[in-house]
Amino acid sequence: MAVYTHLSAEELGELIACYHVGELVSAKGIAEGVSNSNWLVETTGQDGEGARFILTMYERRIELDDLPFFLGLLDHLSGRGCPVPKTIHDRDGAAYRMLDGKAVALIEYLPGVSVDHPTPEQARAVGKALAQMHLASHDFGQTRANDLGIEGSLAILERCGQVSLAEINSRLPAMTQVARNLADIWPQGLPQAICHTDLFPDNVLMLGEKVTGMIDFYFACTEAMAYDLAVTHAAWCFDKTGESFSEDVSQALISSYESLRPLNPRERECLPTLAQGACMRFIASRAEDWIETPADALVTRKDPMDFARRLSFYEKAGNSAFFAG
Amino acid sequence: MAVYTHLSAEELGELIACYHVGELVSAKGIAEGVSNSNWLVETTGQDGEGARFILTMYERRIELDDLPFFLGLLDHLSGRGCPVPKTIHDRDGAAYRMLDGKAVALIEYLPGVSVDHPTPEQARAVGKALAQMHLASHDFGQTRANDLGIEGSLAILERCGQVSLAEINSRLPAMTQVARNLADIWPQGLPQAICHTDLFPDNVLMLGEKVTGMIDFYFACTEAMAYDLAVTHAAWCFDKTGESFSEDVSQALISSYESLRPLNPRERECLPTLAQGACMRFIASRAEDWIETPADALVTRKDPMDFARRLSFYEKAGNSAFFAG
Repeated sequence: MAVYTHLSAEELGELIACYHVGELVSAKGIAEGVSNSNWLVETTGQDGEGARFILTMYERRIELDDLPFFLGLLDHLSGRGCPVPKTIHDRDGAAYRMLDGKAVALIEYLPGVSVDHPTPEQARAVGKALAQMHLASHDFGQTRANDLGIEGSLAILERCGQVSLAEINSRLPAMTQVARNLADIWPQGLPQAICHTDLFPDNVLMLGEKVTGMIDFYFACTEAMAYDLAVTHAAWCFDKTGESFSEDVSQALISSYESLRPLNPRERECLPTLAQGACMRFIASRAEDWIETPADALVTRKDPMDFARRLSFYEKAGNSAFFAG
Repeated sequence: MAVYTHLSAEELGELIACYHVGELVSAKGIAEGVSNSNWLVETTGQDGEGARFILTMYERRIELDDLPFFLGLLDHLSGRGCPVPKTIHDRDGAAYRMLDGKAVALIEYLPGVSVDHPTPEQARAVGKALAQMHLASHDFGQTRANDLGIEGSLAILERCGQVSLAEINSRLPAMTQVARNLADIWPQGLPQAICHTDLFPDNVLMLGEKVTGMIDFYFACTEAMAYDLAVTHAAWCFDKTGESFSEDVSQALISSYESLRPLNPRERECLPTLAQGACMRFIASRAEDWIETPADALVTRKDPMDFARRLSFYEKAGNSAFFAG
């Protein structure tokens, strides 16, 4: 939630001149993204009618080698009608440029706001958009491994160590063994596609009950589609702390996903395990961030327990978390 | 440089509905303002053609009692043709509303970007805009004391203490005595107006050589107009560190200001003292912020020495800093 780099009006003006988007009119650093800096940029547009873009500077975490995957994916999905921002290519056709040794990309600006308390109708729209994205990604042609699968989560928790985990919450050290158990029984061979794997409400722009944009694809990877649905389920069907579950939102999400892409019997059977693995991924990354972020930092630390509660819900509810009766 | 408060799409939508601006289309937290949170808000507009605004939530420092002054000043100045954003009033005519116990105001969005390395032509435009603002403020009717005048700066430095100042830089403790000397000879009875007192390049939006917006009036107060010119001079005529002075930018700024509002002989004579006082104000506030901000905080601390160098320049140059020959 910060702008890490200062770009002068002069630098911004020169950068924008490298694209067919007219002249720079305004640029405001926006408080989005944890590993990159973002500006909401306005230009005169090609036709003089004004245009807006998101300018992203990649500060860390994302390897330059992955950028063609991420930026190409945006083009591929938006080209297939998914509500995903296009990458704006420069006058030479490049998807990103280098500025002060850092990669920058100009991305289409999409309208919409992120909801905090999704309704079933909104979850229905998201389920459809997710299935549409999975189907549209089949002929993308690029692949990327998931660094934050169950083995990755386990490795993070082991790196954190039992003492540090216990300092956050006394129930967290037990999670390392839970992650080991999940890794042992992790479903293999489920149908894969390009998955977002981080489709929280704040990564979805909506206008009313319509999805206008799925954003922040920087965890996108080749994964089991049912795992992506499980992540989205964990992200949308609970209150923030994971204490209360919404049956209505859950049914809307699953049924709308299945209206475009029905799950096969094995995917259905595996959903409870996949959802526990999804929770483990956020327990692990949040625990690591918690330990690395000073308590008095401006950034609010996210509580790993919010997902330990969800995990425990999925463990108990089994298949009934997803399918009625 | 942060958004301190989370506002949900639902809260934002309800808030925007209180204004005649159409429906909420987008809201991005922007990385501007140190004592308030800001969002760049897009709506469908009254005519459906789209409109943009800055939504400001006042988090601290600014007293609620001062808001009618700040927001009324924007209306007054923009009504008189100054490049200043208007306050958008709600359906009941109120300039601000309360949300979660905090005041929020909707402000006109203006195009333009802030320059880092002003040219003489840009300084000329700013000098004119400053004089225009001083003249337009005469019939504003409200007043506000300057908390950060020379006595205020002295009080801050005394509060910091010699030990803490020395920890920042060995040359800073001497500033307390310099501030006392300035307070003793501080010019009284100079012609006053409403002054911005913080018109740095980052508080001026420009398109090319045109001023499209003067923003961030939250230090505005009733002050000597020549003092405001001195602040602007210190802010525009040096490189960031205060090591190099631009004669060209200085002459452009002063002569364009005087083209609209000629200084009287006493104002001219007092400028070197006023400029030293202006530097002292930023030395004091930066020293205080430096001491209060942890070294590892995300916020970059601004070096008080940047203004100690400027102060020393004004001391040596005297009147020749402002007037050739």
